Amino acid sequence: MAERVWDRFLTEQDKSHLAMSRDRRVGFGSRPALLFIDLYRWVFGDEPEPLLEGIKDWPGYCGMAGWNSLPHTQKLLRTAREIGIPVIHVTGLHPADAGVLGWNESAHREAPRSASTDPAVQDRVRRQFDIVDELAPIEGEAVLRKSSPSAFWGTPLAGHLRYLDVDTLIVAGESTSGCVRASVVDGCTHRYRMMVVEECVFDRHEACHAINLFDMHQKYADVVPLAEALDYLNRWQAERAPSAAAQPSLVAAR
Amino acid sequence: MAERVWDRFLTEQDKSHLAMSRDRRVGFGSRPALLFIDLYRWVFGDEPEPLLEGIKDWPGYCGMAGWNSLPHTQKLLRTAREIGIPVIHVTGLHPADAGVLGWNESAHREAPRSASTDPAVQDRVRRQFDIVDELAPIEGEAVLRKSSPSAFWGTPLAGHLRYLDVDTLIVAGESTSGCVRASVVDGCTHRYRMMVVEECVFDRHEACHAINLFDMHQKYADVVPLAEALDYLNRWQAERAPSAAAQPSLVAAR
Amino acid sequence: MAERVWDRFLTEQDKSHLAMSRDRRVGFGSRPALLFIDLYRWVFGDEPEPLLEGIKDWPGYCGMAGWNSLPHTQKLLRTAREIGIPVIHVTGLHPADAGVLGWNESAHREAPRSASTDPAVQDRVRRQFDIVDELAPIEGEAVLRKSSPSAFWGTPLAGHLRYLDVDTLIVAGESTSGCVRASVVDGCTHRYRMMVVEECVFDRHEACHAINLFDMHQKYADVVPLAEALDYLNRWQAERAPSAAAQPSLVAAR
Amino acid sequence: MAERVWDRFLTEQDKSHLAMSRDRRVGFGSRPALLFIDLYRWVFGDEPEPLLEGIKDWPGYCGMAGWNSLPHTQKLLRTAREIGIPVIHVTGLHPADAGVLGWNESAHREAPRSASTDPAVQDRVRRQFDIVDELAPIEGEAVLRKSSPSAFWGTPLAGHLRYLDVDTLIVAGESTSGCVRASVVDGCTHRYRMMVVEECVFDRHEACHAINLFDMHQKYADVVPLAEALDYLNRWQAERAPSAAAQPSLVAAR
Repeated sequence: MAERVWDRFLTEQDKSHLAMSRDRRVGFGSRPALLFIDLYRWVFGDEPEPLLEGIKDWPGYCGMAGWNSLPHTQKLLRTAREIGIPVIHVTGLHPADAGVLGWNESAHREAPRSASTDPAVQDRVRRQFDIVDELAPIEGEAVLRKSSPSAFWGTPLAGHLRYLDVDTLIVAGESTSGCVRASVVDGCTHRYRMMVVEECVFDRHEACHAINLFDMHQKYADVVPLAEALDYLNRWQAERAPSAAAQPSLVAAR
Repeated sequence: MAERVWDRFLTEQDKSHLAMSRDRRVGFGSRPALLFIDLYRWVFGDEPEPLLEGIKDWPGYCGMAGWNSLPHTQKLLRTAREIGIPVIHVTGLHPADAGVLGWNESAHREAPRSASTDPAVQDRVRRQFDIVDELAPIEGEAVLRKSSPSAFWGTPLAGHLRYLDVDTLIVAGESTSGCVRASVVDGCTHRYRMMVVEECVFDRHEACHAINLFDMHQKYADVVPLAEALDYLNRWQAERAPSAAAQPSLVAAR
Repeated sequence: MAERVWDRFLTEQDKSHLAMSRDRRVGFGSRPALLFIDLYRWVFGDEPEPLLEGIKDWPGYCGMAGWNSLPHTQKLLRTAREIGIPVIHVTGLHPADAGVLGWNESAHREAPRSASTDPAVQDRVRRQFDIVDELAPIEGEAVLRKSSPSAFWGTPLAGHLRYLDVDTLIVAGESTSGCVRASVVDGCTHRYRMMVVEECVFDRHEACHAINLFDMHQKYADVVPLAEALDYLNRWQAERAPSAAAQPSLVAAR
Repeated sequence: MAERVWDRFLTEQDKSHLAMSRDRRVGFGSRPALLFIDLYRWVFGDEPEPLLEGIKDWPGYCGMAGWNSLPHTQKLLRTAREIGIPVIHVTGLHPADAGVLGWNESAHREAPRSASTDPAVQDRVRRQFDIVDELAPIEGEAVLRKSSPSAFWGTPLAGHLRYLDVDTLIVAGESTSGCVRASVVDGCTHRYRMMVVEECVFDRHEACHAINLFDMHQKYADVVPLAEALDYLNRWQAERAPSAAAQPSLVAAR
């Protein structure tokens, strides 16, 4: 099998254990949706720059890992819109809108960020959860706001997926070790088929990106290359026309 | 329209309001399952007797309303098993098994029931959440244990339904104004099509039975007669054979 | 005991059963918060008018029951703000903001409301979840948006209450038989002490208002008069000063 | 600062980023409980042996990492019992008991484990979720059963913690990269102060153990040495006697 991004972080014992273990895959289902997680300004900043530069103005900046993923995520989004599967964007619930502190600030309440009086800082904080222009939602796409790592907790996501009759979630976004991971665990827990598109997720820490991909691939999801996700979506579209005609008609008959 | 059980409890103003309102129905979906709620010993006691007799030994006894529903619920269960839809039984999580107090005792912690030393009482308490023999689960049917009014809270029900790919829940059990109502609200919230079979739910209070049926029918579910549920299930079975052949094949193709 | 609003709806058998049953109360805890549910334009309309008039323009209108409750709810809110307990407002998540259909429209998808081209209708629909001016949130109060009957489902409420270290919820809002009831069931399920203030909840149906108060009082909450809630809050404030000094200091010590 | 187990897995860029980041801590609260996750037979096997030996009979075996943690976890448990804080054990919900497949088998339904006819295998499968004798629950301790990675999902844990009035969870168990991680994320999401005791958690993969500790320490929890947890608990006990007398008396006064 081809080398994976996590290989170089595993210990010898880890590799020996893996060699003796069964590799099991999740597999795509038949009713997919796209789930885009936290693709907001706070982790991109306003322009590409090196990680250690960007974090001076944008403490949540993820460096070029984010900017490099953008064309891939745009490609995935374009395909999803073309073939007409549901697209769900999840971003942060701004404390200024809801009066509720996010999970991170809640957890570290002993050491709150001091509110800045610098208008430039205030502007960045105000824009932190704006989805970036390159991936802006369009009419008909859901935009859910969360104050938790997982896209499922404290949002109507589970109900909305049931309404849409989805069985498979194709995941892009960030961070691999944070909200992507948490959402994938919850998606698997809710018994969705979870697909993580490797080129379309990113993290501010290299080791965490790699190991969290490994964890998700081992336990909860298939971590697939973009090409495989696109291939699946194209096949899905091809199969769709005939099967649409075979939809059960009981509802209408009632 | 035929008279409904709740009609006699509504006020004149309620009826005038209803007359001006649109009656909207939920409708059955295409992938049903049966959800049986709290059909346990505590509300039946060991034998049929009048309500005010039975509560002396069984404080949760629901009177003849429960016993009279039994043949209908057995009929529903038999049909579900014959046509092969999933059956899910929900009952109480016994404090003696989990070390967790139920919702009712938790809410009324200032006035706990005193533990009895009478072996007959202890035996009834120990058997309180045993599903009655007439509706005993069989191999392959889920049995979930809850410490909440709703079958969804604190149980893996939502994940299990996703796994089974269910979109419609046909509900029987008790009490209409308690765990049935709470489960129907949650099922609707999760965007399942909720169907309450009128002959198969019961309550210890007549007014509450009627008004909770009304509430559910107005807001969250269709309250249907058993005949309509059976008719739907029979039609479902009839349509099933051809549609089974048309199942999407993407999963296997991967 | 004084007559209660539900008495006239109960049957003779219901009353006999009650007479033989133990009346158990929940009791207030020591860390209260106010929970205001769905006090939005859709159920008030723009001005007081009779129920059957108001529903012509505002299908969700609750009649004078809502307008009559307003001064009581304002009084409760004023007291809560004076003594400094948390206030949490819950309202609807507008489909136009989130791209997600509410629970009611989701449940009745076979019979969607047709979108109106009348600007007056569009304006009302756009303003439907605006909290009414008389109870408008102020800085520092949470405003959560839900697409479910219960204030807990699909919102960060449970986490926010934990963050605030609340153990008691004092509930006002509407409808008694809908979102109030659903939220009270969930609050009880989460093991909060639930208090429903009778003058501060309302419904469009008289029988449902009464019987749902009865159900909540029997099972999940104490349904108390406003005077009792205010008395509790005043005692809470009086006890607060000395106990504040006795707060555990472990956190700071770490 | 002392070296941490994750240091050797981080890249140079990761370390540079960390050096520029603020280290924020969660801190212990004032009402702690112990949360023991999946300390069951399936990951210990029946006796200590090397990892690559043990997995032949016990596919979930975690090697000596598990056995070496045991004395530490026993010490933690003993202390908790001595000072009287709540202890909550979480283990697996056995499919044979509930008729519901676990999250892992659900996710990998395309490649189910074949049921063995070997009685020794059947015996191990039957005993897989038995909590090991060294940490067996005693009367008064909760034992919750889950079919999810997180201890919160599909269990009454959140309600039970609210009932117990807990604000801090001290976590032990396995696997660091699986159910411990998932439970810590959920605990943080629910706004509990999460404490992971480093000597008392373990994993079958070394890289995953280290990086998941890092992730949790960065985002959701404090990963503390056992000595710090014990020191906190001892101080908690010392402060408890006087503060117990200062408990709010409102409830009783009602």
